[in-house]
Amino acid sequence: MKELKHTIYGVVGLGIMGGAIVKAIRAHILDESGATGKVYASNRSKAPLSMASAEGMIDKGFALEDVAQMLSLCDVVYVCLYPDATLQFIKDHRDDFKSGAIVTDISGVKTALVEGLPDGIRPDVDFVVGHPMAGGEKEGYINSKASFFINRNYILMPQPYNTEEHLEFMKQLITAMGFTRIVETEYKNHDHKIAFTSQLCHVIASALVQSAEDERITEFGGGSYEDLTRIAMINAPLWTELFMADKKELLTHIDAFITQLQVIKQDLETEDALHLEKYLEEVRSKRMKMSRIDSIRKV
Amino acid sequence: MKELKHTIYGVVGLGIMGGAIVKAIRAHILDESGATGKVYASNRSKAPLSMASAEGMIDKGFALEDVAQMLSLCDVVYVCLYPDATLQFIKDHRDDFKSGAIVTDISGVKTALVEGLPDGIRPDVDFVVGHPMAGGEKEGYINSKASFFINRNYILMPQPYNTEEHLEFMKQLITAMGFTRIVETEYKNHDHKIAFTSQLCHVIASALVQSAEDERITEFGGGSYEDLTRIAMINAPLWTELFMADKKELLTHIDAFITQLQVIKQDLETEDALHLEKYLEEVRSKRMKMSRIDSIRKV
Repeated sequence: MKELKHTIYGVVGLGIMGGAIVKAIRAHILDESGATGKVYASNRSKAPLSMASAEGMIDKGFALEDVAQMLSLCDVVYVCLYPDATLQFIKDHRDDFKSGAIVTDISGVKTALVEGLPDGIRPDVDFVVGHPMAGGEKEGYINSKASFFINRNYILMPQPYNTEEHLEFMKQLITAMGFTRIVETEYKNHDHKIAFTSQLCHVIASALVQSAEDERITEFGGGSYEDLTRIAMINAPLWTELFMADKKELLTHIDAFITQLQVIKQDLETEDALHLEKYLEEVRSKRMKMSRIDSIRKV
Repeated sequence: MKELKHTIYGVVGLGIMGGAIVKAIRAHILDESGATGKVYASNRSKAPLSMASAEGMIDKGFALEDVAQMLSLCDVVYVCLYPDATLQFIKDHRDDFKSGAIVTDISGVKTALVEGLPDGIRPDVDFVVGHPMAGGEKEGYINSKASFFINRNYILMPQPYNTEEHLEFMKQLITAMGFTRIVETEYKNHDHKIAFTSQLCHVIASALVQSAEDERITEFGGGSYEDLTRIAMINAPLWTELFMADKKELLTHIDAFITQLQVIKQDLETEDALHLEKYLEEVRSKRMKMSRIDSIRKV
Protein backbone atom coordinates (compact mmCIF):
# COMPACT_ATOMS: atom_id res chain seq x y z
CA MET A 1 0.00 0.00 0.00
CA LYS A 2 0.98 3.62 -0.52
CA GLU A 3 1.47 5.94 2.41
CA LEU A 4 -1.74 7.42 3.84
CA LYS A 5 -0.93 10.84 2.44
CA HIS A 6 -0.40 9.53 -1.09
CA THR A 7 -3.59 7.44 -1.19
CA ILE A 8 -6.70 8.12 -3.30
CA TYR A 9 -9.79 7.90 -1.13
CA GLY A 10 -13.40 7.61 -2.29
CA VAL A 11 -16.39 8.10 -0.03
CA VAL A 12 -19.79 6.75 -1.13
CA GLY A 13 -22.60 8.59 0.64
CA LEU A 14 -21.77 12.07 1.87
CA GLY A 15 -23.99 12.26 4.96
CA ILE A 16 -22.91 12.99 8.50
CA MET A 17 -20.51 10.02 8.65
CA GLY A 18 -19.18 10.24 5.10
CA GLY A 19 -18.74 13.95 5.63
CA ALA A 20 -16.80 13.45 8.85
CA ILE A 21 -14.51 10.90 7.15
CA VAL A 22 -13.82 13.29 4.28
CA LYS A 23 -13.11 16.13 6.70
CA ALA A 24 -10.91 14.00 8.98
CA ILE A 25 -8.83 12.77 6.02
CA ARG A 26 -8.50 16.31 4.73
CA ALA A 27 -7.57 17.75 8.14
CA HIS A 28 -5.29 15.05 9.50
CA ILE A 29 -3.80 13.25 6.48
CA LEU A 30 -3.84 15.32 3.30
CA ASP A 31 -2.66 18.42 5.17
CA GLU A 32 0.80 16.86 5.47
CA SER A 33 3.57 18.38 3.41
CA GLY A 34 4.10 16.69 0.08
CA ALA A 35 0.75 14.89 0.20
CA THR A 36 -0.36 13.77 -3.25
CA GLY A 37 -3.47 11.89 -2.11
CA LYS A 38 -6.99 12.89 -3.01
CA VAL A 39 -10.50 12.55 -1.64
CA TYR A 40 -13.43 11.95 -3.95
CA ALA A 41 -17.05 11.54 -2.97
CA SER A 42 -20.25 10.36 -4.56
CA ASN A 43 -23.77 11.03 -3.34
CA ARG A 44 -27.35 10.62 -4.56
CA SER A 45 -28.20 14.32 -4.13
CA LYS A 46 -25.80 16.91 -5.46
CA ALA A 47 -26.02 19.55 -2.71
CA PRO A 48 -23.52 17.92 -0.32
CA LEU A 49 -21.07 17.39 -3.18
CA SER A 50 -21.26 21.06 -4.16
CA MET A 51 -20.84 22.16 -0.57
CA ALA A 52 -17.88 19.85 0.06
CA SER A 53 -16.23 21.01 -3.17
CA ALA A 54 -16.78 24.65 -2.34
CA GLU A 55 -15.28 24.09 1.11
CA GLY A 56 -12.25 22.40 -0.42
CA MET A 57 -13.02 19.19 1.43
CA ILE A 58 -13.19 16.98 -1.69
CA ASP A 59 -11.11 17.09 -4.84
CA LYS A 60 -14.05 16.07 -6.98
CA GLY A 61 -17.68 15.06 -6.52
CA PHE A 62 -19.22 12.29 -8.64
CA ALA A 63 -22.92 11.99 -9.37
CA LEU A 64 -24.29 8.56 -8.53
CA GLU A 65 -24.45 7.61 -12.21
CA ASP A 66 -20.71 8.29 -12.45
CA VAL A 67 -19.72 6.40 -9.32
CA ALA A 68 -18.12 3.56 -11.33
CA GLN A 69 -15.65 6.08 -12.68
CA MET A 70 -14.80 7.20 -9.15
CA LEU A 71 -14.40 3.63 -7.89
CA SER A 72 -11.94 2.86 -10.70
CA LEU A 73 -9.63 5.58 -9.34
CA CYS A 74 -9.70 4.82 -5.60
CA ASP A 75 -7.21 2.87 -3.47
CA VAL A 76 -9.60 2.98 -0.52
CA VAL A 77 -13.40 3.13 -0.77
CA TYR A 78 -15.48 4.03 2.29
CA VAL A 79 -19.08 2.93 1.75
CA CYS A 80 -21.13 5.17 4.08
CA LEU A 81 -24.67 4.02 3.32
CA TYR A 82 -27.40 2.33 5.37
CA PRO A 83 -26.66 -1.36 6.13
CA ASP A 84 -28.87 -2.94 3.44
CA ALA A 85 -27.78 -0.39 0.85
CA THR A 86 -24.12 -1.04 1.72
CA LEU A 87 -24.40 -4.73 0.86
CA GLN A 88 -26.33 -3.93 -2.30
CA PHE A 89 -23.86 -1.26 -3.41
CA ILE A 90 -20.83 -3.53 -3.03
CA LYS A 91 -22.58 -6.30 -4.97
CA ASP A 92 -23.81 -3.94 -7.70
CA HIS A 93 -20.35 -2.45 -8.18
CA ARG A 94 -18.41 -5.71 -7.92
CA ASP A 95 -16.69 -5.07 -11.22
CA ASP A 96 -16.06 -1.36 -10.75
CA PHE A 97 -13.48 -1.34 -7.96
CA LYS A 98 -9.81 -0.79 -8.76
CA SER A 99 -7.73 -3.94 -8.56
CA GLY A 100 -5.94 -4.08 -5.19
CA ALA A 101 -8.35 -1.65 -3.55
CA ILE A 102 -9.53 -1.79 0.04
CA VAL A 103 -13.28 -1.45 0.42
CA THR A 104 -14.62 -0.76 3.89
CA ASP A 105 -17.90 0.29 5.51
CA ILE A 106 -19.39 1.97 8.57
CA SER A 107 -22.53 -0.10 9.04
CA GLY A 108 -23.86 -0.56 12.58
CA VAL A 109 -24.86 -4.23 12.05
CA LYS A 110 -22.64 -6.78 10.34
CA THR A 111 -24.15 -10.27 10.21
CA ALA A 112 -26.12 -9.85 6.98
CA LEU A 113 -23.23 -7.98 5.39
CA VAL A 114 -20.48 -10.46 6.25
CA GLU A 115 -22.60 -13.49 5.46
CA GLY A 116 -23.94 -11.94 2.27
CA LEU A 117 -20.66 -10.77 0.79
CA PRO A 118 -18.46 -13.79 -0.03
CA ASP A 119 -19.82 -13.94 -3.55
CA GLY A 120 -20.17 -10.19 -3.82
CA ILE A 121 -16.55 -9.11 -3.82
CA ARG A 122 -13.73 -9.89 -6.25
CA PRO A 123 -10.65 -11.82 -5.09
CA ASP A 124 -8.39 -8.89 -5.97
CA VAL A 125 -10.39 -6.46 -3.80
CA ASP A 126 -10.13 -6.62 0.00
CA PHE A 127 -13.23 -5.88 2.05
CA VAL A 128 -12.35 -4.76 5.58
CA VAL A 129 -15.31 -4.91 7.96
CA GLY A 130 -15.30 -2.01 10.40
CA HIS A 131 -17.47 0.21 12.56
CA PRO A 132 -16.45 3.71 13.62
CA MET A 133 -18.20 4.26 16.97
CA ALA A 134 -19.15 7.88 16.57
CA GLY A 135 -21.83 10.10 15.14
CA GLY A 136 -24.35 12.71 16.08
CA GLU A 137 -28.08 13.09 16.38
CA LYS A 138 -28.12 15.60 13.53
CA GLU A 139 -28.02 14.31 9.99
CA GLY A 140 -26.32 15.27 6.78
CA TYR A 141 -22.97 16.50 5.51
CA ILE A 142 -23.72 19.95 6.89
CA ASN A 143 -23.59 18.57 10.44
CA SER A 144 -20.38 16.56 10.00
CA LYS A 145 -17.15 17.58 11.69
CA ALA A 146 -13.52 16.53 11.34
CA SER A 147 -13.40 16.25 15.12
CA PHE A 148 -16.14 13.58 15.40
CA PHE A 149 -13.65 10.76 15.76
CA ILE A 150 -11.30 12.22 18.32
CA ASN A 151 -10.94 9.81 21.28
CA ARG A 152 -13.51 7.37 19.89
CA ASN A 153 -13.57 3.59 19.54
CA TYR A 154 -13.30 1.78 16.19
CA ILE A 155 -14.28 -1.85 15.89
CA LEU A 156 -12.51 -3.98 13.28
CA MET A 157 -13.70 -7.46 12.34
CA PRO A 158 -10.83 -9.04 10.38
CA GLN A 159 -11.87 -11.74 7.93
CA PRO A 160 -9.75 -14.77 6.91
CA TYR A 161 -9.26 -13.28 3.47
CA ASN A 162 -7.95 -9.87 4.70
CA THR A 163 -4.25 -9.32 4.15
CA GLU A 164 -2.05 -8.22 7.06
CA GLU A 165 -0.86 -5.28 4.95
CA HIS A 166 -4.41 -4.02 4.42
CA LEU A 167 -5.39 -4.43 8.07
CA GLU A 168 -2.26 -2.55 9.09
CA PHE A 169 -3.07 0.21 6.59
CA MET A 170 -6.61 0.53 7.96
CA LYS A 171 -5.29 0.79 11.53
CA GLN A 172 -2.99 3.62 10.47
CA LEU A 173 -5.86 5.36 8.70
CA ILE A 174 -8.23 4.93 11.65
CA THR A 175 -5.64 6.27 14.09
CA ALA A 176 -4.84 9.20 11.83
CA MET A 177 -8.55 10.14 11.69
CA GLY A 178 -8.52 10.56 15.48
CA PHE A 179 -9.73 7.26 16.93
CA THR A 180 -7.79 6.22 20.03
CA ARG A 181 -8.94 2.65 20.59
CA ILE A 182 -9.24 -0.08 17.96
CA VAL A 183 -11.06 -3.17 19.16
CA GLU A 184 -10.82 -6.35 17.09
CA THR A 185 -13.62 -8.84 17.39
CA GLU A 186 -15.75 -11.35 15.54
CA TYR A 187 -18.78 -9.96 13.66
CA LYS A 188 -21.37 -11.85 15.69
CA ASN A 189 -19.88 -10.56 18.92
CA HIS A 190 -19.95 -7.06 17.43
CA ASP A 191 -23.65 -7.34 16.69
CA HIS A 192 -24.30 -8.66 20.21
CA LYS A 193 -22.35 -5.89 21.96
CA ILE A 194 -23.59 -3.08 19.72
CA ALA A 195 -27.19 -4.14 20.27
CA PHE A 196 -26.48 -3.23 23.89
CA THR A 197 -24.30 -0.10 23.77
CA SER A 198 -26.00 1.49 20.81
CA GLN A 199 -29.39 0.04 19.92
CA LEU A 200 -30.70 -0.58 23.44
CA CYS A 201 -29.72 2.99 24.35
CA HIS A 202 -31.72 4.34 21.41
CA VAL A 203 -34.68 2.16 22.41
CA ILE A 204 -34.48 3.50 25.98
CA ALA A 205 -34.22 7.12 24.85
CA SER A 206 -37.20 6.66 22.52
CA ALA A 207 -39.37 4.97 25.17
CA LEU A 208 -38.41 7.72 27.62
CA VAL A 209 -39.60 10.41 25.23
CA GLN A 210 -42.86 8.59 24.55
CA SER A 211 -43.55 8.09 28.27
CA ALA A 212 -43.35 11.85 28.92
CA GLU A 213 -46.79 13.26 29.65
CA ASP A 214 -46.19 16.22 27.36
CA GLU A 215 -43.49 18.21 25.61
CA ARG A 216 -43.28 20.78 28.40
CA ILE A 217 -41.66 18.21 30.68
CA THR A 218 -38.24 19.79 30.18
CA GLU A 219 -39.44 22.75 32.27
CA PHE A 220 -38.81 20.33 35.12
CA GLY A 221 -35.51 19.09 33.74
CA GLY A 222 -32.19 19.37 35.49
CA GLY A 223 -30.10 17.90 32.69
CA SER A 224 -30.56 14.15 33.21
CA TYR A 225 -33.70 13.81 31.11
CA GLU A 226 -32.26 16.04 28.39
CA ASP A 227 -29.04 13.98 28.31
CA LEU A 228 -30.83 10.62 28.27
CA THR A 229 -33.13 11.61 25.41
CA ARG A 230 -30.76 13.57 23.16
CA ILE A 231 -30.26 10.50 20.92
CA ALA A 232 -34.05 10.24 20.55
CA MET A 233 -33.81 12.97 17.89
CA ILE A 234 -33.49 9.85 15.86
CA ASN A 235 -33.17 9.06 12.15
CA ALA A 236 -36.24 6.83 12.04
CA PRO A 237 -35.63 4.92 8.78
CA LEU A 238 -31.98 4.18 9.64
CA TRP A 239 -32.69 3.02 13.19
CA THR A 240 -35.68 0.95 12.14
CA GLU A 241 -33.33 -0.89 9.79
CA LEU A 242 -30.65 -1.29 12.47
CA PHE A 243 -33.17 -2.50 15.10
CA MET A 244 -34.74 -4.99 12.72
CA ALA A 245 -31.40 -6.31 11.45
CA ASP A 246 -30.25 -7.04 14.99
CA LYS A 247 -33.59 -7.75 16.63
CA LYS A 248 -32.73 -11.06 18.26
CA GLU A 249 -29.78 -9.57 20.17
CA LEU A 250 -31.69 -6.39 20.91
CA LEU A 251 -34.66 -8.26 22.36
CA THR A 252 -32.32 -10.19 24.67
CA HIS A 253 -30.86 -6.92 25.96
CA ILE A 254 -34.25 -5.25 26.38
CA ASP A 255 -35.38 -8.20 28.50
CA ALA A 256 -32.23 -8.11 30.64
CA PHE A 257 -32.73 -4.39 31.15
CA ILE A 258 -36.38 -4.80 32.14
CA THR A 259 -35.29 -7.49 34.63
CA GLN A 260 -33.04 -4.92 36.30
CA LEU A 261 -35.86 -2.37 36.36
CA GLN A 262 -37.98 -5.02 38.11
CA VAL A 263 -35.31 -5.43 40.81
CA ILE A 264 -35.50 -1.72 41.57
CA LYS A 265 -39.32 -1.79 41.39
CA GLN A 266 -39.44 -4.57 43.92
CA ASP A 267 -37.18 -2.69 46.33
CA LEU A 268 -39.51 0.31 46.07
CA GLU A 269 -42.66 -1.77 46.48
CA THR A 270 -41.31 -3.64 49.51
CA GLU A 271 -39.61 -0.47 50.83
CA ASP A 272 -36.34 -2.37 51.06
CA ALA A 273 -34.10 0.68 51.38
CA LEU A 274 -31.13 -1.41 52.51
CA HIS A 275 -31.18 -3.59 49.41
CA LEU A 276 -31.75 -0.60 47.14
CA GLU A 277 -28.81 1.28 48.63
CA LYS A 278 -26.59 -1.79 48.21
CA TYR A 279 -27.76 -2.11 44.59
CA LEU A 280 -26.93 1.54 43.91
CA GLU A 281 -23.50 1.16 45.54
CA GLU A 282 -22.80 -1.71 43.15
CA VAL A 283 -24.00 0.40 40.23
CA ARG A 284 -21.69 3.23 41.19
CA SER A 285 -18.73 0.94 41.63
CA LYS A 286 -19.35 -0.82 38.30
CA ARG A 287 -19.81 2.45 36.42
CA MET A 288 -16.69 3.95 37.98
CA LYS A 289 -14.66 1.02 36.63
CA MET A 290 -16.15 1.70 33.19
CA SER A 291 -15.04 5.31 33.56
CA ARG A 292 -11.49 4.17 34.00
CA ILE A 293 -11.81 2.28 30.73
CA ASP A 294 -13.28 5.44 29.15
CA SER A 295 -10.24 7.34 30.25
CA ILE A 296 -7.99 5.27 27.99
CA ARG A 297 -9.70 7.15 25.20
CA LYS A 298 -8.57 10.50 26.59
CA VAL A 299 -4.90 9.73 25.87
CA MET B 1 -35.61 43.13 52.15
CA LYS B 2 -32.16 44.54 51.58
CA GLU B 3 -30.62 44.55 48.14
CA LEU B 4 -29.02 41.22 47.12
CA LYS B 5 -25.53 42.65 47.45
CA HIS B 6 -26.12 43.91 51.00
CA THR B 7 -27.66 40.66 52.26
CA ILE B 8 -26.10 38.23 54.77
CA TYR B 9 -26.33 34.67 53.42
CA GLY B 10 -25.85 31.47 55.37
CA VAL B 11 -25.42 28.06 53.76
CA VAL B 12 -25.99 24.93 55.84
CA GLY B 13 -24.18 21.94 54.33
CA LEU B 14 -21.20 22.78 52.14
CA GLY B 15 -21.37 19.89 49.65
CA ILE B 16 -21.57 20.14 45.89
CA MET B 17 -24.81 22.16 45.94
CA GLY B 18 -24.05 24.32 48.98
CA GLY B 19 -20.63 24.95 47.48
CA ALA B 20 -22.09 26.00 44.13
CA ILE B 21 -24.51 28.39 45.87
CA VAL B 22 -21.70 29.98 47.86
CA LYS B 23 -19.57 30.34 44.74
CA ALA B 24 -22.42 31.71 42.61
CA ILE B 25 -23.28 34.32 45.26
CA ARG B 26 -19.63 35.28 45.56
CA ALA B 27 -19.10 35.48 41.79
CA HIS B 28 -22.34 37.10 40.66
CA ILE B 29 -23.65 39.12 43.63
CA LEU B 30 -20.97 40.05 46.15
CA ASP B 31 -18.53 41.04 43.41
CA GLU B 32 -20.62 44.15 42.74
CA SER B 33 -19.11 47.45 43.74
CA GLY B 34 -20.11 48.63 47.19
CA ALA B 35 -21.38 45.20 48.23
CA THR B 36 -21.57 44.87 52.01
CA GLY B 37 -23.17 41.41 52.06
CA LYS B 38 -21.49 38.30 53.40
CA VAL B 39 -21.63 34.56 52.94
CA TYR B 40 -21.30 32.23 55.89
CA ALA B 41 -21.37 28.46 55.85
CA SER B 42 -21.71 25.62 58.31
CA ASN B 43 -20.80 21.99 57.75
CA ARG B 44 -20.41 18.80 59.76
CA SER B 45 -16.81 18.20 58.66
CA LYS B 46 -14.37 21.09 58.78
CA ALA B 47 -12.36 20.46 55.59
CA PRO B 48 -14.83 22.13 53.16
CA LEU B 49 -15.09 25.16 55.49
CA SER B 50 -11.31 25.55 55.57
CA MET B 51 -11.07 25.18 51.83
CA ALA B 52 -13.88 27.68 51.15
CA SER B 53 -12.30 30.17 53.57
CA ALA B 54 -8.87 29.79 52.02
CA GLU B 55 -10.37 30.33 48.58
CA GLY B 56 -12.12 33.48 49.80
CA MET B 57 -15.51 31.97 48.98
CA ILE B 58 -16.96 32.36 52.48
CA ASP B 59 -16.45 35.15 54.99
CA LYS B 60 -16.58 32.73 57.90
CA GLY B 61 -17.13 29.03 58.49
CA PHE B 62 -19.12 27.81 61.48
CA ALA B 63 -18.70 24.37 63.04
CA LEU B 64 -22.00 22.53 63.36
CA GLU B 65 -22.12 23.18 67.10
CA ASP B 66 -21.97 26.93 66.37
CA VAL B 67 -24.59 26.94 63.63
CA ALA B 68 -27.14 28.71 65.89
CA GLN B 69 -24.77 31.67 66.04
CA MET B 70 -24.56 31.71 62.25
CA LEU B 71 -28.34 31.48 61.82
CA SER B 72 -28.84 34.48 64.14
CA LEU B 73 -26.83 36.62 61.70
CA CYS B 74 -28.36 35.56 58.38
CA ASP B 75 -31.04 37.28 56.29
CA VAL B 76 -31.23 34.27 53.98
CA VAL B 77 -30.50 30.69 55.01
CA TYR B 78 -29.98 28.00 52.33
CA VAL B 79 -30.40 24.55 53.88
CA CYS B 80 -28.43 22.22 51.58
CA LEU B 81 -28.86 18.87 53.32
CA TYR B 82 -30.52 15.56 52.36
CA PRO B 83 -34.36 15.75 52.38
CA ASP B 84 -35.00 14.14 55.78
CA ALA B 85 -32.14 16.06 57.36
CA THR B 86 -33.49 19.32 55.91
CA LEU B 87 -36.83 18.92 57.69
CA GLN B 88 -35.10 17.89 60.91
CA PHE B 89 -32.65 20.80 60.76
CA ILE B 90 -35.36 23.42 60.32
CA LYS B 91 -37.35 21.95 63.20
CA ASP B 92 -34.32 21.65 65.48
CA HIS B 93 -33.28 25.24 64.84
CA ARG B 94 -36.76 26.75 64.95
CA ASP B 95 -35.69 29.30 67.56
CA ASP B 96 -32.29 30.13 66.09
CA PHE B 97 -33.26 31.94 62.87
CA LYS B 98 -33.08 35.73 62.75
CA SER B 99 -36.47 37.42 62.84
CA GLY B 100 -37.58 38.30 59.30
CA ALA B 101 -35.25 35.77 57.68
CA ILE B 102 -35.98 33.76 54.58
CA VAL B 103 -35.20 30.07 54.94
CA THR B 104 -35.06 28.00 51.78
CA ASP B 105 -33.93 24.53 50.70
CA ILE B 106 -32.72 22.51 47.71
CA SER B 107 -34.39 19.18 48.44
CA GLY B 108 -35.39 16.99 45.48
CA VAL B 109 -38.66 15.81 47.09
CA LYS B 110 -41.10 18.13 48.83
CA THR B 111 -44.22 16.39 50.11
CA ALA B 112 -42.81 15.30 53.49
CA LEU B 113 -41.09 18.64 53.91
CA VAL B 114 -44.08 20.87 53.11
CA GLU B 115 -46.53 18.74 55.06
CA GLY B 116 -44.14 18.35 57.98
CA LEU B 117 -43.20 21.99 58.39
CA PRO B 118 -46.26 24.04 59.42
CA ASP B 119 -45.41 23.60 63.09
CA GLY B 120 -41.69 23.72 62.45
CA ILE B 121 -41.19 27.31 61.42
CA ARG B 122 -41.84 30.53 63.36
CA PRO B 123 -44.42 33.07 62.10
CA ASP B 124 -41.68 35.71 61.71
CA VAL B 125 -39.53 33.45 59.52
CA ASP B 126 -40.55 32.75 55.91
CA PHE B 127 -39.83 29.31 54.46
CA VAL B 128 -39.62 29.42 50.65
CA VAL B 129 -39.85 25.97 49.06
CA GLY B 130 -37.56 25.66 46.06
CA HIS B 131 -35.58 23.23 43.94
CA PRO B 132 -32.56 24.28 41.88
CA MET B 133 -32.48 21.83 38.94
CA ALA B 134 -28.75 21.34 38.68
CA GLY B 135 -25.93 19.30 40.07
CA GLY B 136 -23.24 16.88 39.09
CA GLU B 137 -22.40 13.23 39.53
CA LYS B 138 -19.38 14.12 41.62
CA GLU B 139 -19.88 14.96 45.27
CA GLY B 140 -18.51 17.48 47.69
CA TYR B 141 -17.53 21.13 47.87
CA ILE B 142 -14.37 20.39 45.89
CA ASN B 143 -16.50 19.51 42.82
CA SER B 144 -18.80 22.54 43.06
CA LYS B 145 -18.64 25.35 40.53
CA ALA B 146 -20.08 28.86 40.33
CA SER B 147 -21.20 28.02 36.80
CA PHE B 148 -23.44 25.06 37.76
CA PHE B 149 -26.58 27.12 37.57
CA ILE B 150 -26.06 28.90 34.27
CA ASN B 151 -29.07 28.32 31.97
CA ARG B 152 -30.75 25.94 34.43
CA ASN B 153 -34.33 25.62 35.68
CA TYR B 154 -35.41 26.53 39.23
CA ILE B 155 -38.72 25.31 40.59
CA LEU B 156 -40.47 27.45 43.20
CA MET B 157 -43.48 26.22 45.19
CA PRO B 158 -44.99 29.33 46.80
CA GLN B 159 -46.92 28.67 50.00
CA PRO B 160 -49.94 30.68 51.22
CA TYR B 161 -47.85 32.15 54.05
CA ASN B 162 -45.01 33.41 51.77
CA THR B 163 -44.88 37.19 51.37
CA GLU B 164 -44.76 38.70 47.88
CA GLU B 165 -41.65 40.61 48.92
CA HIS B 166 -39.81 37.44 49.86
CA LEU B 167 -40.83 35.58 46.71
CA GLU B 168 -39.68 38.53 44.64
CA PHE B 169 -36.37 38.61 46.51
CA MET B 170 -35.85 34.88 45.90
CA LYS B 171 -36.53 35.30 42.18
CA GLN B 172 -33.91 38.05 42.00
CA LEU B 173 -31.44 35.86 43.87
CA ILE B 174 -32.15 32.82 41.68
CA THR B 175 -31.74 34.84 38.50
CA ALA B 176 -28.54 36.44 39.77
CA MET B 177 -27.08 32.98 40.47
CA GLY B 178 -27.49 32.14 36.78
CA PHE B 179 -30.80 30.29 36.43
CA THR B 180 -32.74 31.32 33.35
CA ARG B 181 -36.13 29.76 33.91
CA ILE B 182 -38.18 29.85 37.13
CA VAL B 183 -41.17 27.52 37.11
CA GLU B 184 -43.82 27.96 39.80
CA THR B 185 -45.90 24.97 40.72
CA GLU B 186 -47.60 23.11 43.55
CA TYR B 187 -45.42 20.77 45.62
CA LYS B 188 -47.34 17.59 44.73
CA ASN B 189 -46.97 18.37 41.03
CA HIS B 190 -43.27 18.99 41.60
CA ASP B 191 -42.85 15.56 43.16
CA HIS B 192 -44.78 13.97 40.29
CA LYS B 193 -42.76 15.67 37.55
CA ILE B 194 -39.39 15.26 39.25
CA ALA B 195 -40.01 11.56 39.78
CA PHE B 196 -40.01 11.45 35.97
CA THR B 197 -37.29 13.87 34.86
CA SER B 198 -34.86 13.10 37.63
CA GLN B 199 -35.57 9.90 39.58
CA LEU B 200 -36.75 7.73 36.65
CA CYS B 201 -33.63 8.77 34.72
CA HIS B 202 -31.41 7.67 37.61
CA VAL B 203 -33.31 4.37 37.82
CA ILE B 204 -32.81 3.80 34.08
CA ALA B 205 -29.11 4.66 34.22
CA SER B 206 -28.63 2.31 37.17
CA ALA B 207 -30.51 -0.58 35.54
CA LEU B 208 -28.52 0.00 32.35
CA VAL B 209 -25.23 -0.34 34.22
CA GLN B 210 -26.37 -3.49 35.99
CA SER B 211 -27.57 -5.09 32.75
CA ALA B 212 -24.10 -4.72 31.18
CA GLU B 213 -22.40 -8.09 30.90
CA ASP B 214 -19.14 -6.69 32.21
CA GLU B 215 -17.23 -3.47 32.80
CA ARG B 216 -15.37 -3.73 29.50
CA ILE B 217 -18.58 -2.96 27.62
CA THR B 218 -17.45 0.63 26.98
CA GLU B 219 -14.86 -0.78 24.55
CA PHE B 220 -17.90 -1.07 22.30
CA GLY B 221 -19.28 2.34 23.22
CA GLY B 222 -19.87 5.15 20.78
CA GLY B 223 -20.99 7.74 23.32
CA SER B 224 -24.64 6.81 23.84
CA TYR B 225 -24.06 4.25 26.57
CA GLU B 226 -21.55 6.50 28.29
CA ASP B 227 -23.97 9.46 28.18
CA LEU B 228 -26.95 7.44 29.42
CA THR B 229 -25.05 5.99 32.38
CA ARG B 230 -23.01 8.98 33.53
CA ILE B 231 -25.56 9.75 36.28
CA ALA B 232 -25.19 6.16 37.50
CA MET B 233 -22.02 7.28 39.30
CA ILE B 234 -24.64 7.80 41.92
CA ASN B 235 -24.65 8.95 45.54
CA ALA B 236 -26.35 5.80 46.84
CA PRO B 237 -27.58 7.01 50.27
CA LEU B 238 -29.01 10.27 48.84
CA TRP B 239 -30.78 8.62 45.91
CA THR B 240 -32.13 5.79 48.05
CA GLU B 241 -33.73 8.47 50.23
CA LEU B 242 -35.09 10.36 47.20
CA PHE B 243 -36.45 7.20 45.54
CA MET B 244 -38.14 6.02 48.73
CA ALA B 245 -39.61 9.43 49.55
CA ASP B 246 -41.22 9.64 46.11
CA LYS B 247 -41.78 5.94 45.45
CA LYS B 248 -45.45 6.07 44.53
CA GLU B 249 -44.86 8.59 41.73
CA LEU B 250 -41.67 6.86 40.66
CA LEU B 251 -43.36 3.46 40.39
CA THR B 252 -46.05 4.99 38.16
CA HIS B 253 -43.40 6.39 35.84
CA ILE B 254 -41.37 3.15 35.76
CA ASP B 255 -44.52 1.29 34.71
CA ALA B 256 -45.34 3.81 31.98
CA PHE B 257 -41.78 3.55 30.72
CA ILE B 258 -41.87 -0.27 30.65
CA THR B 259 -45.17 -0.05 28.72
CA GLN B 260 -43.35 1.95 26.03
CA LEU B 261 -40.50 -0.57 25.95
CA GLN B 262 -43.13 -3.27 25.40
CA VAL B 263 -44.49 -1.38 22.39
CA ILE B 264 -41.05 -1.42 20.81
CA LYS B 265 -40.52 -5.07 21.81
CA GLN B 266 -43.74 -6.05 20.11
CA ASP B 267 -42.78 -4.29 16.89
CA LEU B 268 -39.49 -6.21 16.92
CA GLU B 269 -41.14 -9.52 17.70
CA THR B 270 -43.77 -9.12 15.00
CA GLU B 271 -41.26 -7.52 12.62
CA ASP B 272 -43.60 -4.59 12.15
CA ALA B 273 -41.05 -2.22 10.63
CA LEU B 274 -43.74 0.18 9.43
CA HIS B 275 -45.18 0.69 12.90
CA LEU B 276 -41.70 0.96 14.45
CA GLU B 277 -40.64 3.62 11.96
CA LYS B 278 -43.82 5.59 12.63
CA TYR B 279 -43.20 5.31 16.38
CA LEU B 280 -39.64 6.59 15.97
CA GLU B 281 -40.85 9.46 13.79
CA GLU B 282 -43.22 10.47 16.60
CA VAL B 283 -40.38 10.20 19.10
CA ARG B 284 -38.19 12.45 17.00
CA SER B 285 -40.91 15.02 16.53
CA LYS B 286 -41.82 15.07 20.22
CA ARG B 287 -38.19 15.35 21.32
CA MET B 288 -37.52 18.15 18.80
CA LYS B 289 -40.34 20.17 20.36
CA MET B 290 -38.73 19.62 23.75
CA SER B 291 -35.50 20.92 22.29
CA ARG B 292 -37.21 24.14 21.38
CA ILE B 293 -38.29 24.47 25.01
CA ASP B 294 -34.70 23.71 26.06
CA SER B 295 -33.53 26.52 23.90
CA ILE B 296 -35.32 29.08 26.05
CA ARG B 297 -32.63 28.27 28.55
CA LYS B 298 -29.89 29.23 26.16
CA VAL B 299 -30.90 32.91 26.25
